[in-house]
Amino acid sequence: MPIYKAPLRDMKFVMQELFESSQQSSLSGSENVSEQDMDMILAEAAKFCENILFPLNLSGDTEGCHWENKEVRTPKGFKEAYQEFVSSGWASLACEPEYGGQGLPETIALAVEEMVCSSNLSFGLYPGLTRGAYQLLLKHGTDELKQHYLPKMVEGVWSGTMCLTEPHCGTDLGLVRTKAVSQSDGSYKITGTKIFISSGEHDLTENIIHFVLARTPEGPSGIRGVSLFLVPKFLTDDNKEIKQRNTVYCDSIERKMGLKGSSTCVLSFEDATGWLVGSLYKGVANMFTMMNNERLAVGNQGLGIAEIAYQNALSYAKERLQGRALTGVKHPEKNADPIIVHPDVRKMLLTMKTYNEGNRMLGTWVALHIMRSQKAENAVEREEADEFVQLMTPVVKAFMTDCGTEVASLGVQVYGGHGYIHEYGMEQYMRDARIAQIYEGTNGVQALDLVGRKIPTATGRYLRRFFHPVYGYIQEKQGDAFLAEFVGPLQKAFERLQQATITLAQRGLSNPDEIGAAASDYLRLIALTAHAYLWTKACEVAYKKKTGQESAFYESKIATARFFMQKILPQTSSLFACIMSGSKPLMEMKEEAFGPF
Amino acid sequence: MPIYKAPLRDMKFVMQELFESSQQSSLSGSENVSEQDMDMILAEAAKFCENILFPLNLSGDTEGCHWENKEVRTPKGFKEAYQEFVSSGWASLACEPEYGGQGLPETIALAVEEMVCSSNLSFGLYPGLTRGAYQLLLKHGTDELKQHYLPKMVEGVWSGTMCLTEPHCGTDLGLVRTKAVSQSDGSYKITGTKIFISSGEHDLTENIIHFVLARTPEGPSGIRGVSLFLVPKFLTDDNKEIKQRNTVYCDSIERKMGLKGSSTCVLSFEDATGWLVGSLYKGVANMFTMMNNERLAVGNQGLGIAEIAYQNALSYAKERLQGRALTGVKHPEKNADPIIVHPDVRKMLLTMKTYNEGNRMLGTWVALHIMRSQKAENAVEREEADEFVQLMTPVVKAFMTDCGTEVASLGVQVYGGHGYIHEYGMEQYMRDARIAQIYEGTNGVQALDLVGRKIPTATGRYLRRFFHPVYGYIQEKQGDAFLAEFVGPLQKAFERLQQATITLAQRGLSNPDEIGAAASDYLRLIALTAHAYLWTKACEVAYKKKTGQESAFYESKIATARFFMQKILPQTSSLFACIMSGSKPLMEMKEEAFGPF
Repeated sequence: MPIYKAPLRDMKFVMQELFESSQQSSLSGSENVSEQDMDMILAEAAKFCENILFPLNLSGDTEGCHWENKEVRTPKGFKEAYQEFVSSGWASLACEPEYGGQGLPETIALAVEEMVCSSNLSFGLYPGLTRGAYQLLLKHGTDELKQHYLPKMVEGVWSGTMCLTEPHCGTDLGLVRTKAVSQSDGSYKITGTKIFISSGEHDLTENIIHFVLARTPEGPSGIRGVSLFLVPKFLTDDNKEIKQRNTVYCDSIERKMGLKGSSTCVLSFEDATGWLVGSLYKGVANMFTMMNNERLAVGNQGLGIAEIAYQNALSYAKERLQGRALTGVKHPEKNADPIIVHPDVRKMLLTMKTYNEGNRMLGTWVALHIMRSQKAENAVEREEADEFVQLMTPVVKAFMTDCGTEVASLGVQVYGGHGYIHEYGMEQYMRDARIAQIYEGTNGVQALDLVGRKIPTATGRYLRRFFHPVYGYIQEKQGDAFLAEFVGPLQKAFERLQQATITLAQRGLSNPDEIGAAASDYLRLIALTAHAYLWTKACEVAYKKKTGQESAFYESKIATARFFMQKILPQTSSLFACIMSGSKPLMEMKEEAFGPF
Repeated sequence: MPIYKAPLRDMKFVMQELFESSQQSSLSGSENVSEQDMDMILAEAAKFCENILFPLNLSGDTEGCHWENKEVRTPKGFKEAYQEFVSSGWASLACEPEYGGQGLPETIALAVEEMVCSSNLSFGLYPGLTRGAYQLLLKHGTDELKQHYLPKMVEGVWSGTMCLTEPHCGTDLGLVRTKAVSQSDGSYKITGTKIFISSGEHDLTENIIHFVLARTPEGPSGIRGVSLFLVPKFLTDDNKEIKQRNTVYCDSIERKMGLKGSSTCVLSFEDATGWLVGSLYKGVANMFTMMNNERLAVGNQGLGIAEIAYQNALSYAKERLQGRALTGVKHPEKNADPIIVHPDVRKMLLTMKTYNEGNRMLGTWVALHIMRSQKAENAVEREEADEFVQLMTPVVKAFMTDCGTEVASLGVQVYGGHGYIHEYGMEQYMRDARIAQIYEGTNGVQALDLVGRKIPTATGRYLRRFFHPVYGYIQEKQGDAFLAEFVGPLQKAFERLQQATITLAQRGLSNPDEIGAAASDYLRLIALTAHAYLWTKACEVAYKKKTGQESAFYESKIATARFFMQKILPQTSSLFACIMSGSKPLMEMKEEAFGPF
């Protein structure tokens, strides 16, 4: 019953009109890829997602994964879809040609991933984790490991996982107990239990390559003693042929709120053979290569779910006849008006629309900087871009996933009672979206990463990568008559952000709890300010084109931006007040005072 | 794995310290019920909920309801629990002694219902609907119908349903198509399909009494032609013995996001025998007796779920060791500190706590007025109390259920990854809570009822039932040194509410869309102002007692109120800004401009 059409027009707007597409091509070394080529790639990906992945979404949720004898069978159709996913090349878009990748811009991969997440998030997790594992090994692996593992992972016939969490430790990786004992041949024997491992076992690929945090017995305690190991499900020979089953097993899979087509595994490593990746004791730091990649990907998951929730809510709101418009009958030929005539329904739809389009701009903006950080010719430009990415990674992860759940919940609300019924699909989106606020670091951890770590670094240098362009843009557009209605609210939000930053910097020096108390509100404040900046830039583009052929599209952009400025951005005033009220209301509460009484 | 302990101490605070308990006893005609009696009743109810209902909650969710051959089997244990529920008298607490009820104060019934909702919301729906049906028949039924049906319903051996929704109509009841044809013996033959009927079929009671909206063929079209009928599952003889199966059948039950232990039925009426309740063509108006009762009950459901979510989140936050406090190690003897040391975790917990305790005060405040509206000696007092109830019904329904989902979601977040796993229980609370924002009128419909109907009535007379006590209290407490930190923010919020009211009244005259555009924000603004008022009063009580034996409890009240004033109430600033920005950002958007592009 639900529908999905990839938002190709808006993707084109963001990738080619808001940002310069030529820069994306040249940075990725694919100068020969024209805008038309990009359009064609995205259109093909859209077809695959709409016709192959999307029809398996509701059935995959209904059926779930099956665990038997330590093996996992994915829902009906997933295996065939995965084969086609791989053979069509969707797994390797932005991977290095050296390892069989297509070397296309990161922005294209991001757009395709969004489509995958919209059409079938459970499915998307299988190749999604592999992409993160690829990044990890590419950056930290020895040449030998890279030559052996990367080509098969890029091809998609082997998949990847990240094994961090243990029953007693999630956020705090210094508590990891899994052991790694070095062997005379340079390998390690890994023993321990990992939980919540997405795609830890499944039937989609010939091999599964686990990246595991573990502790060598002779190492220091805490986080400084944790190292990173590559542990394949099957050991392979020099020709990469399967040689022998490694001793890592899936003991069970979780019964979860959503993402039922994605296996979440308890893995037990029983003297399993593995190899060190990166330096000894640098496990957690190195894992963050994968983690940061995943955090951006998880933000994109929030957008993907939110997009399909919006599409369906919109379609329902135009079709569902119920009651009459407050200002008088709009469709006298019908028994009732469609519910889109009602202001409150419009408010829900516009909230969804503005978050989605804003987050698409935000995600692409960061993806552009990832490319610059890796490929720009100038070292300073690379470094500055990297700083921007580091700053915005927690913002993308937390804000875009908060929006994911909020938008999915609004989708349920627009559907009314039907939104709560499985077959209409909306309730699944809400259940699927919810995990994204938690995994790869809860959104509270993201906020603390932003305010406690990223912002203080080098006395605010990372933050200036965001502040400078925004401040410069506000200055540049002072007095622009068309943009005044956007620049004004942007400037106000930006000033609030500046003042909150200064206050926090001062208070945080004497009391770190001030940082922690403000973190979530601050993250949302910077995210909304980023949206305000991007919406203003979007309107600058739209104004120039709104009298042309596609005036409806550009007028929609301007109207959506107006809604954002007047109905969403005012959130910054209460966020600011909450930040300024400090940590005392939280910390003066004695532990016993929380209850129970 | 989850826990539940009824919040008896806080219930006592609200029922006996914040509000006068003697008034509750005398209004209900149970002057002989002392505070100690009340405590005992609630303590007994707590035992039943904690020990009988709560252990069936997770298993009921796992198993769900079973439909076969048009009959529904409830999850294992529900039938036995229901027998005990009925035999212990929990079904008839506030019902009229004339029909076998116990005539206890409505406030006691409210507290017991909250416990039922906390411990097993799915179960709670079966007796919950019966209570609404009881009210409906009590007010609108003929003596003959009342004598025949009410005693068995009060006893709980027969249950009730409300049958409004049809596949094409939910909110807009003028579209009802179910037909009622009058028979020579005064009965009617009812034919049609009803959907989303909670408790429409089950195995808990000997008979099920449906209250059905239907249209007589000779009546006018639209809402003015709809009447209300009583249609029992089994026809009974004069001795109330089952005589014959009536022709109303359950064609299927829905697969839903949550509430899986509660049957949501498609009912087909096939020339089923029924009797008119109330006057012909007054069906929708009369149904609102039940509907309003249910709306208040649904608000209480939001609180019930939120309470158990808080209790578990709190317990987890005290036990889960992960990381260290930002200000230095708090528990050096442990590997890590419990996560309750973190400001952001505290912020989540306090948000949960303050919403819950505030909503408990709000719900009880309204329940008190229900009693006054029915039983006060003075007719003016009855009328004014009724006006207050009418005003606050949509506020209780919408705000308390919005909080229900928000708090349940925060509970999931505090648990991190474990929150997403079925066996820990938190994800079920979120799924169960979500429907309450939709059924018995979506929260958008509640907001429109408040701002479009209740507030304009008699040029704001209903609204004055809220404004007058709040304004009077603010005046009375000017200059009170202890309360200044609460009265100040309350006054500011109240002024925003006043200004928003005046603005809306003016704008709404020329453009009804202004009402619709502001409705949801206005409802939240009045709800937060009500919370601010009640928290201030709670602190007034707490200040007087905080040096006594239970100082921890009263200090907790004051600290929670401070949190509310500084971290929650500032929401009113952005709500105010959104209200003032008017309907244009919503209505200027052409329908095509929503997409898809």
